[in-house]
Amino acid sequence: MEYRIIKSPSRGTLDILFRRKGSPSSVTIEDYDAVGLVQGRLIDMVFAADIAEKGAGVVVEDIKGHCPQNLIMIAIFGDTASVEAAIKEIQYKLKEAKTGEIG
Amino acid sequence: MEYRIIKSPSRGTLDILFRRKGSPSSVTIEDYDAVGLVQGRLIDMVFAADIAEKGAGVVVEDIKGHCPQNLIMIAIFGDTASVEAAIKEIQYKLKEAKTGEIG
Amino acid sequence: MEYRIIKSPSRGTLDILFRRKGSPSSVTIEDYDAVGLVQGRLIDMVFAADIAEKGAGVVVEDIKGHCPQNLIMIAIFGDTASVEAAIKEIQYKLKEAKTGEIG
Amino acid sequence: MEYRIIKSPSRGTLDILFRRKGSPSSVTIEDYDAVGLVQGRLIDMVFAADIAEKGAGVVVEDIKGHCPQNLIMIAIFGDTASVEAAIKEIQYKLKEAKTGEIG
Amino acid sequence: MEYRIIKSPSRGTLDILFRRKGSPSSVTIEDYDAVGLVQGRLIDMVFAADIAEKGAGVVVEDIKGHCPQNLIMIAIFGDTASVEAAIKEIQYKLKEAKTGEIG
Amino acid sequence: MEYRIIKSPSRGTLDILFRRKGSPSSVTIEDYDAVGLVQGRLIDMVFAADIAEKGAGVVVEDIKGHCPQNLIMIAIFGDTASVEAAIKEIQYKLKEAKTGEIG
Repeated sequence: MEYRIIKSPSRGTLDILFRRKGSPSSVTIEDYDAVGLVQGRLIDMVFAADIAEKGAGVVVEDIKGHCPQNLIMIAIFGDTASVEAAIKEIQYKLKEAKTGEIG
Repeated sequence: MEYRIIKSPSRGTLDILFRRKGSPSSVTIEDYDAVGLVQGRLIDMVFAADIAEKGAGVVVEDIKGHCPQNLIMIAIFGDTASVEAAIKEIQYKLKEAKTGEIG
Repeated sequence: MEYRIIKSPSRGTLDILFRRKGSPSSVTIEDYDAVGLVQGRLIDMVFAADIAEKGAGVVVEDIKGHCPQNLIMIAIFGDTASVEAAIKEIQYKLKEAKTGEIG
Repeated sequence: MEYRIIKSPSRGTLDILFRRKGSPSSVTIEDYDAVGLVQGRLIDMVFAADIAEKGAGVVVEDIKGHCPQNLIMIAIFGDTASVEAAIKEIQYKLKEAKTGEIG
Repeated sequence: MEYRIIKSPSRGTLDILFRRKGSPSSVTIEDYDAVGLVQGRLIDMVFAADIAEKGAGVVVEDIKGHCPQNLIMIAIFGDTASVEAAIKEIQYKLKEAKTGEIG
Repeated sequence: MEYRIIKSPSRGTLDILFRRKGSPSSVTIEDYDAVGLVQGRLIDMVFAADIAEKGAGVVVEDIKGHCPQNLIMIAIFGDTASVEAAIKEIQYKLKEAKTGEIG
C-alpha cells in the first residue's frame, strides 16, 4: 500500500480525480486544502476507507484507475492536518490487523 | 484467498461496496453489523459464496474490483458472530476440499 | 486448468453464475442438482466446453470473470453423476490431446 | 502461439465462439466440419489471420477473450482438411518470417 | 517494440484491423498495398505514430487489442516501399531518442 | 516513470491523444508546439499532473491507454520550453518527495 499527500491541489488535478471517482457526479470534491492518495489491493482499500471515514474532517472517495489488476486507489479530502491524521490512522490500524489468509 | 472483517462499517465504506456489488441496485446492503470481505480466484469465490450462503444469518454479494486478473471479492453481510462463523466455515471447507487440477 | 464441483448450489451462488453467464438472460440455469466449475485458458475452455457438451445430461455455460488475463471459466450444470462424468471426460480428453505449440 | 483443432464442434461450443466473434452478428459461423483455434499476441494473430485467409476453403474470425493481456484468439472454420492445412501454413510462414524487434 | 509487414493484406485481415481502429468508422482503410504493424508501450507508440505520420505516403491508425497491459498497436497503411520506409524511420529515431526515465 | 517530448506533433498523433484524453471532447488540444508524455502509476501521475499544472504555460491531460495495469499516462501541452520545464520540475519534485509505503 502506498500513499501521497498533495497540498493545495490544482484545478486540473482535482478534475482528473473528479472524472475517476466512484460516487455520483452530483457530489463535488472541490473545497478541500489537501488530498491524500492511498493505492492498494481492493480488500485493503475497503478497510482503509472505513478507517479514514471514521476519523474526523475528511471525505473518502474511491478513484478508478485503468484496469489495475486488483488495485484501487482512494482519495481522502480535507484540511491538511485531518488528511495526515487519516493516513497515520490507516498506517497504525493496518499494522495492528493484518489481512487474514485462507487455505 | 484473503479475508478481513470490518465491524460497524461506515456509510462511505458501504457506499463503495454498494456501487460495486453484482446484484441489482434495488437490493440494499445497509442494515448489518459487520461485513466480511473474502478475495480470491473466481472459481474459489463461487465455492466460498456457496458455503457462506448455506450458513445462517448472512447475505453474500460479489463485489467488482477494477479488472483483477482472475480475482473477485465477495462481501458477507450479517451480525458479527454470523460473519465470523461464515469465514470460519469457508476456511474449514476449503481445507477439506481443494480445487482439483486437470492436465 | 482447475475444477470444483458444487452439490445443491445455493440460490445466491446460482445468482452469481447467472449474472456472469455468456448466453442471453432468457435462458435460465436453475433446475440442476450440481454445478461443475472448470477454469482455464480461453483456448482450452472452448475445447473443454465441446467435450462436456458431447456428453449426456449436462448444459454448459461460459462464465465471465473480471478480466482474467487469458482465463475464462465454464460451468457445467446437471445431476451430480452427469457433472462428474463430464469433468472426468474433460480430464481424459485433455490428457490425450495436448494443446499444440506454434513457433 | 498455441492451437487446437475441434472436429464436429457441438452447438454450445459454436455458441460460445459466436458470442465472442468480432464480426457483425449477421454473419453466421455454423456450417463447418471443423474449427481451428489459434491463440497468440495481437501482432502475430493479425499475421496468422492473413495467412489463413489466403488459403482455400476457410473462414477466419477473431474471438474476444476476457481481457487477455496482449493475446487474442482467432478461429478458422472449414472442413477438417482445410483447417489443418491452414494451421500448417501458419506454422510454416511464422517460422520463415519472425516478428521483427525494434529498439 | 515489435513489428511485422503484411503485403497485399486479405479482406478478412483488413476487417479485423478495421473493427479495432481508433478513428471514426467513416474513415476507410482499404486501398493500400501493405500494412505495417508496430506493437509496443503506449508512450512509445504515440512517439512512433508521430514519426510515421511525418514520413510520406502512409496513413497511421492505432489498433485496439484486448486489454494489453500498457501495450497498444499501430498500423501503418501505404504502398510497400512507404511502409518499409516508415518502419525503418521508427527504428532509427527510437534508437536515437530513448524514452527518458524519471525517479 | 518514463517520459518523452514530441516537438511539432503531427495531426494523426494529436488525434490519437485526443481520442484518449479524459476531459470532455469540447476541450481541444490542438494549438501547441510540443507535447510531453509521462507514463507511470496512477498515484504518481496524479502527483505529477499537479506539479505540471502549477508550472506556467502548460495544459495537462490524462490519456487513456488500453488497460495498463496500474499505469496511466499524462500529456503536457505547451510551447517546447514550458513542456521541458514541466518535465524537469516533475523529475525534481518526485526525487524530493518519494511515494510513502504503508504496511
